[in-house]
Amino acid sequence: MFRDKTCGELRLSDAGTSVTLAGWVQRARKMGGMTFVDMRDRYGVTQVVFNNETDAALCEMANKLGREFVIQVTGDVAERSSKNMNIPTGEIEIIARKLVILNRSDVPPFTIEDDTDGGDDIRMKYRYLDLRRPAIRRNLELRHKMAFEIRRYLDEKGFIEVETPVLIKSTPEGARDFVVPSRMNPGEFYALPQSPQTFKQLLMVSGFDRYFQIVKCFRDEDLRADRQPEFTQIDCEMSFVEQEDVLQMFEGLVKHIFRYVKDIDFTEAFPRMTWADAMKYYGCDKPDTRFEMKFVEIKDLTVGKGFAVLDDAEYVGAICAKGCADYTRKQLDQLTDFVKRPQIGAKGLMWVKLEQDGSIKSSVSKFYSEEELRVWADRCQAEAGDLILILCGETMKTRKQLCELRLEMGSRLGLRDPQKFSCLWVVDFPLFEWDEETQRFYAMHHPFTSPNPEDFDKLDTATGEVRATAYDMIVNGNELGGGSIRIHDAALQDKMFRLLGLSEADAQYKFGFLMDAFKYGAPPHGGLAFGFDRFVSILAGLDSIRDVIAFPKNNSGRDVMIDAPSTIDQAQLDELALALVPVTKE
Amino acid sequence: MFRDKTCGELRLSDAGTSVTLAGWVQRARKMGGMTFVDMRDRYGVTQVVFNNETDAALCEMANKLGREFVIQVTGDVAERSSKNMNIPTGEIEIIARKLVILNRSDVPPFTIEDDTDGGDDIRMKYRYLDLRRPAIRRNLELRHKMAFEIRRYLDEKGFIEVETPVLIKSTPEGARDFVVPSRMNPGEFYALPQSPQTFKQLLMVSGFDRYFQIVKCFRDEDLRADRQPEFTQIDCEMSFVEQEDVLQMFEGLVKHIFRYVKDIDFTEAFPRMTWADAMKYYGCDKPDTRFEMKFVEIKDLTVGKGFAVLDDAEYVGAICAKGCADYTRKQLDQLTDFVKRPQIGAKGLMWVKLEQDGSIKSSVSKFYSEEELRVWADRCQAEAGDLILILCGETMKTRKQLCELRLEMGSRLGLRDPQKFSCLWVVDFPLFEWDEETQRFYAMHHPFTSPNPEDFDKLDTATGEVRATAYDMIVNGNELGGGSIRIHDAALQDKMFRLLGLSEADAQYKFGFLMDAFKYGAPPHGGLAFGFDRFVSILAGLDSIRDVIAFPKNNSGRDVMIDAPSTIDQAQLDELALALVPVTKE
Repeated sequence: MFRDKTCGELRLSDAGTSVTLAGWVQRARKMGGMTFVDMRDRYGVTQVVFNNETDAALCEMANKLGREFVIQVTGDVAERSSKNMNIPTGEIEIIARKLVILNRSDVPPFTIEDDTDGGDDIRMKYRYLDLRRPAIRRNLELRHKMAFEIRRYLDEKGFIEVETPVLIKSTPEGARDFVVPSRMNPGEFYALPQSPQTFKQLLMVSGFDRYFQIVKCFRDEDLRADRQPEFTQIDCEMSFVEQEDVLQMFEGLVKHIFRYVKDIDFTEAFPRMTWADAMKYYGCDKPDTRFEMKFVEIKDLTVGKGFAVLDDAEYVGAICAKGCADYTRKQLDQLTDFVKRPQIGAKGLMWVKLEQDGSIKSSVSKFYSEEELRVWADRCQAEAGDLILILCGETMKTRKQLCELRLEMGSRLGLRDPQKFSCLWVVDFPLFEWDEETQRFYAMHHPFTSPNPEDFDKLDTATGEVRATAYDMIVNGNELGGGSIRIHDAALQDKMFRLLGLSEADAQYKFGFLMDAFKYGAPPHGGLAFGFDRFVSILAGLDSIRDVIAFPKNNSGRDVMIDAPSTIDQAQLDELALALVPVTKE
Repeated sequence: MFRDKTCGELRLSDAGTSVTLAGWVQRARKMGGMTFVDMRDRYGVTQVVFNNETDAALCEMANKLGREFVIQVTGDVAERSSKNMNIPTGEIEIIARKLVILNRSDVPPFTIEDDTDGGDDIRMKYRYLDLRRPAIRRNLELRHKMAFEIRRYLDEKGFIEVETPVLIKSTPEGARDFVVPSRMNPGEFYALPQSPQTFKQLLMVSGFDRYFQIVKCFRDEDLRADRQPEFTQIDCEMSFVEQEDVLQMFEGLVKHIFRYVKDIDFTEAFPRMTWADAMKYYGCDKPDTRFEMKFVEIKDLTVGKGFAVLDDAEYVGAICAKGCADYTRKQLDQLTDFVKRPQIGAKGLMWVKLEQDGSIKSSVSKFYSEEELRVWADRCQAEAGDLILILCGETMKTRKQLCELRLEMGSRLGLRDPQKFSCLWVVDFPLFEWDEETQRFYAMHHPFTSPNPEDFDKLDTATGEVRATAYDMIVNGNELGGGSIRIHDAALQDKMFRLLGLSEADAQYKFGFLMDAFKYGAPPHGGLAFGFDRFVSILAGLDSIRDVIAFPKNNSGRDVMIDAPSTIDQAQLDELALALVPVTKE
């Protein structure tokens, strides 16, 4: 061992002992006849002192140390005269007796500090140096701890982790698969799993009863900032359960993680909201419930006053921004520009101000009397000093726009503290989505999701209204995970396929082996999957998942550090019986 | 919840309580006016009784249950009149009051029992039914428990689990990579990792200090019975360590697993053996040390007696099979046939019997006197009743043959009990292997393995004799894992590349980004990786790894259950800018 202590563990009580440390030179500075070196390892930073008077040769050696040199220091722990109470080792320093340079370092391309001078591109190219920064290291430590606690909770609950295969079969539905040519079976390909969905259902058929896996999944999608071609799921499934059992079990898991990782105790049950209410009050299926500001529908109050815009609108919705009546014209213009951006697409923004003096001002005062606007305000539970913001148009579209506006106002008002956590179950999702283009229903979740038993009789008569036994766990407006109770009855599954426009032959071709398995005694079962990267990023208080992944890929799916993907030899292509087709770039 | 108890937990103390169970029909039988149903779930089997006299309709329903039907039963726990003490629930039965058929089952293609009537092929095709057999289920439960305990130990020791990428870069050395065409980067490919070797070394450069990962790895090799294209490694790396630190840490891990999973306490340190001794005494680098029967070299005793075979042999080695002097001619012929099989390739087998009456018999008594043979026997520490078996020829070849013979004798003598565990470190591997064909040295482990510091001066003068700082953990003749201390010094690494015949340009091309990383302060580091599938199979007492993997592939790399690999659409090929090349089968 090159050390007997780490750079994070020495305290005042260790003063007087002789120690050997190993680590990296964070910085070195000369002051008078002394040279001070901050030594860093995973566990912390410790100050080392070289005294020119007692050992000039040693001090000279220390003076030549560069940033990020790897050194080994032996010396005595001493109390510091000027203590640094910001770090746990700040009361002591090491009076060096011996210095060994274990390895030298070129000058790193950016500073290894939380507040680095390195841009995103260079940090990704030198990710191994970026990972030295304490902020990134803490994210990965958090990730490890969360994975460990997830396993501890699920193990205690009788779940067993089963590894499902990575080289599987390409499925013709859903997002694009990554495929892997098979050398031993020329012309054939494996696919990398988008999720272990079918395998976990097979494990239920096998009687495994309670399964989980923290597992890499793959999706060949065009990447957005917060998507990665490979990502990690916490995949879970249980037999002989109903929706309530699944919600209880995994609410327990989330509470366990918050308790043991963040020291936050959720003593109350997580609120539950139907999908219909989530859309009605928040305009999306993953509402950020850290703050209220619910939608208020005021269409009925706005008609017949000669304002065609509102008279013609299918939907008129308002939100009340507390204490924002003092917003200036400029601020209101900014908000109007915000909702008119193409990504949001509103035609305009209406507002009503309840001034502190009791008066009312509004962008629509031409059409509505103060009396009438006061009725709007009452419905919105607005008080003096509040600002009401109003959007109108086609119902679902306007709700989406109002959702964005609500989030924007939440951010402006500081209501979205990343260290405050609001968890929520959204339930009663629709089973089907109607697609205008192809004029048919698609499964909103997947074709194995069970309808809500109360809606069985609507399957034929009011297909679009049938609710699924599906649920999502939402934290701070992010979908942390979701799942469903699965269909285990062959007749019901057949009916689902028919409703989805799949013939028996289609269904057999696409889902044959799962359907075959279901003939041999499939138990009632259900489960869910959490996005682990997202889960970690939320607990780390980060917007992006990239900094909770050790070696992420960029938006072109490229690892710029190792420069992958890359070309392969002709010999490799030959072995795989493949040829490249030239691509004409347009 | 469809149940309030499992089929494994009810005991005599529960008698009189009302319970609801859910599970599969293991078997049903009528006896007199009663119908007995054995209900099975993951946790056990419980007997359910239907009484024709008290509820004829219910009993009639039970009589129609088929094997593997999924049922829910409500009834009262009662003491059995004829107890079955072989199972934990054998003292009770459930007097059924209610029966719900949750799902029906076709007749399964083989019996769901440890001693099944299903052959390998059909069981693999219906792996989801095969997994219902308790023997297989227990293997996967063992696997889960081992993974959990591995994580618990390593977490306690300060290791953090970091997920390394699955979509990486193809490396032109070693076994074949599986590759993944990149749609976003036409003509380029990712590779699936054969191990996270480079990433774990990068994590050490990043200062992670103690890393581990239980991780899927991939190798596109022609498969043997005991190889899988995807397999799982326990991958570990530590910084600021020497070989001794690594051995201590992971000996601790193995002992922890045996203690908490098998309830076996290894109180002594695991023995260590040099590679040279392993070859000398056991003829291989992974000796099965559950039994002695070490090789004895007797060349010096055999020369000059006119027996050209031994006179000309480079090596003459013997093993002593205790108590086998009574082997018949037929048995000795069998052994001779065994060593002459092409896979082993010996030219013949010589033997010396020390009869119980003190006399000596031998296949070479024509050339050697009883006196002379007695000297051989003394060196072999053979006693009356023992059989000495002798092979001769070129040293390394003969040792391999003698190794096979020793294992065969161990098996015949019952010395290889799968429930007895003998662990061993093999150390001091050679750093290089000489390849006759290409007339150059290859790295025995990999080119980053550090030479033994004691042998630094031999690097140029006696390259072939340089020992590596590499080590293997052997259990019962299986390589459980292995690793090395890595080179962290750029100059030494350069020297290694030169000795391996790699130019600077070659080295940069093949290992560029790792070499680049090493310029920025690489700490001394080392580690190892265990084969997790093998580890589980050894603790399960199994020869093959296949039954500790939930969904294994066959020897053609095919998953016969899901029928993968398979063809993909032309549209998919087009998107990937790939064309299939017709393969002419010979």
